[in-house]
Amino acid sequence: MSADLEHHITSLAQRARAASLVLATISTAKKNAALQHLAELLIQNNAALLTANTRDLVAASENDLTSAQIDRLTLTPERLHHLAESVRQVIELPDPVGELLDESTRPNGLLLRRVRVPIGVIGIVYEARPNVTIDCAVLCLKSGNAAILRGGKECFHTNTALAELISLALAKADLPTDAVQLIPTTDRAALTTLLKLDTLVHCIIPRGGESLIRFVAQNSTIPVIKHYQGVCFVYADRAADLTMAERIIVNAKTSRPGVCNAAEQLLVHREIAENFLPTAARALIAAAKVELRCDAESSAILSAAQIAHVAATNADYTTEFLAQILAVRVVDSLDQAIATINRDSSGHTESIVTEDETAARKFQTAVDSAAVLWNASTRFNDGFEFGLGAEIGISTDRLHARGPMGLRELCSYKWLGTGTGQVRG
Amino acid sequence: MSADLEHHITSLAQRARAASLVLATISTAKKNAALQHLAELLIQNNAALLTANTRDLVAASENDLTSAQIDRLTLTPERLHHLAESVRQVIELPDPVGELLDESTRPNGLLLRRVRVPIGVIGIVYEARPNVTIDCAVLCLKSGNAAILRGGKECFHTNTALAELISLALAKADLPTDAVQLIPTTDRAALTTLLKLDTLVHCIIPRGGESLIRFVAQNSTIPVIKHYQGVCFVYADRAADLTMAERIIVNAKTSRPGVCNAAEQLLVHREIAENFLPTAARALIAAAKVELRCDAESSAILSAAQIAHVAATNADYTTEFLAQILAVRVVDSLDQAIATINRDSSGHTESIVTEDETAARKFQTAVDSAAVLWNASTRFNDGFEFGLGAEIGISTDRLHARGPMGLRELCSYKWLGTGTGQVRG
Repeated sequence: MSADLEHHITSLAQRARAASLVLATISTAKKNAALQHLAELLIQNNAALLTANTRDLVAASENDLTSAQIDRLTLTPERLHHLAESVRQVIELPDPVGELLDESTRPNGLLLRRVRVPIGVIGIVYEARPNVTIDCAVLCLKSGNAAILRGGKECFHTNTALAELISLALAKADLPTDAVQLIPTTDRAALTTLLKLDTLVHCIIPRGGESLIRFVAQNSTIPVIKHYQGVCFVYADRAADLTMAERIIVNAKTSRPGVCNAAEQLLVHREIAENFLPTAARALIAAAKVELRCDAESSAILSAAQIAHVAATNADYTTEFLAQILAVRVVDSLDQAIATINRDSSGHTESIVTEDETAARKFQTAVDSAAVLWNASTRFNDGFEFGLGAEIGISTDRLHARGPMGLRELCSYKWLGTGTGQVRG
Repeated sequence: MSADLEHHITSLAQRARAASLVLATISTAKKNAALQHLAELLIQNNAALLTANTRDLVAASENDLTSAQIDRLTLTPERLHHLAESVRQVIELPDPVGELLDESTRPNGLLLRRVRVPIGVIGIVYEARPNVTIDCAVLCLKSGNAAILRGGKECFHTNTALAELISLALAKADLPTDAVQLIPTTDRAALTTLLKLDTLVHCIIPRGGESLIRFVAQNSTIPVIKHYQGVCFVYADRAADLTMAERIIVNAKTSRPGVCNAAEQLLVHREIAENFLPTAARALIAAAKVELRCDAESSAILSAAQIAHVAATNADYTTEFLAQILAVRVVDSLDQAIATINRDSSGHTESIVTEDETAARKFQTAVDSAAVLWNASTRFNDGFEFGLGAEIGISTDRLHARGPMGLRELCSYKWLGTGTGQVRG
């Protein structure tokens, strides 16, 4: 890598660090003023943003992006309006910084308080969604963190135009423009440099496909908060309300199959399998032509009912399909369901459908996933649905944040002690 | 590395993972029973432990360990008694697992609760202190985590003997003995293998010297919670009570200079420097022959008062001396003190001495360190002193835990949702 590039990225991170010290001490009103300016600028600069986006779209069509990729990349006046709306929604959210977590007075009279503070400098590494540029900048700013954004090359012109508006909004609110910086190159070497700046950058959040996330996790000496996959399970227990179980699996599988909280796996207790599986299978097929990939026992039941399905491979049982495909297995017991999930799931979201409270409590205690739901669709594991107001991602890690990461999860804390001259004996 | 060794370490981690799923669901009483057995076994097996320790001590004297290293390695009947006592103290601490963090009911009726759960499998990488083996095993067990211990070669026989007792205590309490496992080799390749097992091990906590911690941080794909250094500052403000400031800097510097919360740096506001520095310097020299490494201004004041000192180098201003050495600087203002600390400190613990509440609040808000104390010695940043009951270390990271890590910080959380058949629109 060129020494110039390394110097440039290091200098950018140093400026982010300096800005973060300012951000950590400023008022909520000032942060909200910057967000208000940004929302207005997004509307006022509609035309310029669409022009920049068109440059990316032209390149995209030349570079054989898939239609799904092009769709994610595309801005429209309506999408810009929604983006400005999402910025305004963050203004309404409570400022997490300064919140008192707990306090106590020690026997020696030392008063101790833990208060929420920003993490510091957060690096966001993402792919071709321009809305991530705004979402992440806004959530980092509201939580008092400086952000370093590294978007994908497919989105470079759009991101550059958006980053200019963010700078302008910061300047209008009299905040350091270094508080949000876009890395002005999509050179992989710049990313690799960033990922080693562990004295300046405090956290890396990768957002995108699994290969990007793995690259970041493998190459970063900075702590990374991530989720790789959502291989989510629904378990229909022997004591399930079958109508409810059918409604939940249809929703979990078909309402939005391309997202991480969609169900990929169905486990059915043997005692209800003959009654439940044919009806549920018909409903899944009727709703979205779901392809059912079955173990021997569920296959026999569906064959007897003359319902289309295919035989599952072992790989299907741990696969995030992100498509209208569902792997189906019959289990002997609640214990087997729990063991199967703890072995095969990605630890994202699982759901049990049962009228048996004891079974539900056991499932919730023993299943080791970020969210464990009882009689509800896996699709609810989401920052908005969980009441966080917005999310920067969903973590399947266990340190710091697990599940949806909102403003609170973008914060650290510090210990403040107030004494009267105490010394240690 | 040999495929055998890699297979062995992987298999050990798989068994730890399986044990962690059991530990996550068991009662406090059962965990405490294992701790009670361990405390008894440490006393009953006094002789066998001392014999094992003697083997390490013989090797140590052959391998030219320093006297400080040998002291840390040495067990005595009295130290074993203290170790058993420390185990009993953890029995008395509240079990963090299952604690309700918050709950809310969403507009759709979904009841959401966040509850504290164990992290899962924790790898502890440490050097030659046999008490770490017991402390870490006990804290991990009480918080429901499986532990993989990797101690230093200097302590291998002692650790092996201690690990056997831990296994016995687990078995006596009918808990899986895989809940605490010692890696049965100090081969570096075994450590490197462990640090890559990110699907089985959820957190690595290195304890030891900076080079060990850096090795772990650079080579681990598992999240690491660490602290590198404690370059702690005391700032005597213009409005300081000079007697209090003297008492605090003497305590912070001299009460135990080899620990991370000892002060290494003194900043003095110019307005009080002439009055404060000669008296404080005499007190530091009287208490522990402290070597004062001074900037030009503080040097001039001490020279005028005929007090011994040396000129500081730039490196002194960011050095963790871990010795009776103190770097001294005069600053113009509170703002300069804050900027100096945010540039030069390690983010561990800083203290301001002042009677001016506005200055203290500003200092506490703007200084970006794990603990920021007002009118108290830096030596208080410690799990026991902060009321956590025990600590596994002090984190200068910002994610997950910052400052002392007790049982609570050895936990993650999960989201539990209770519905009545809710699906997402």
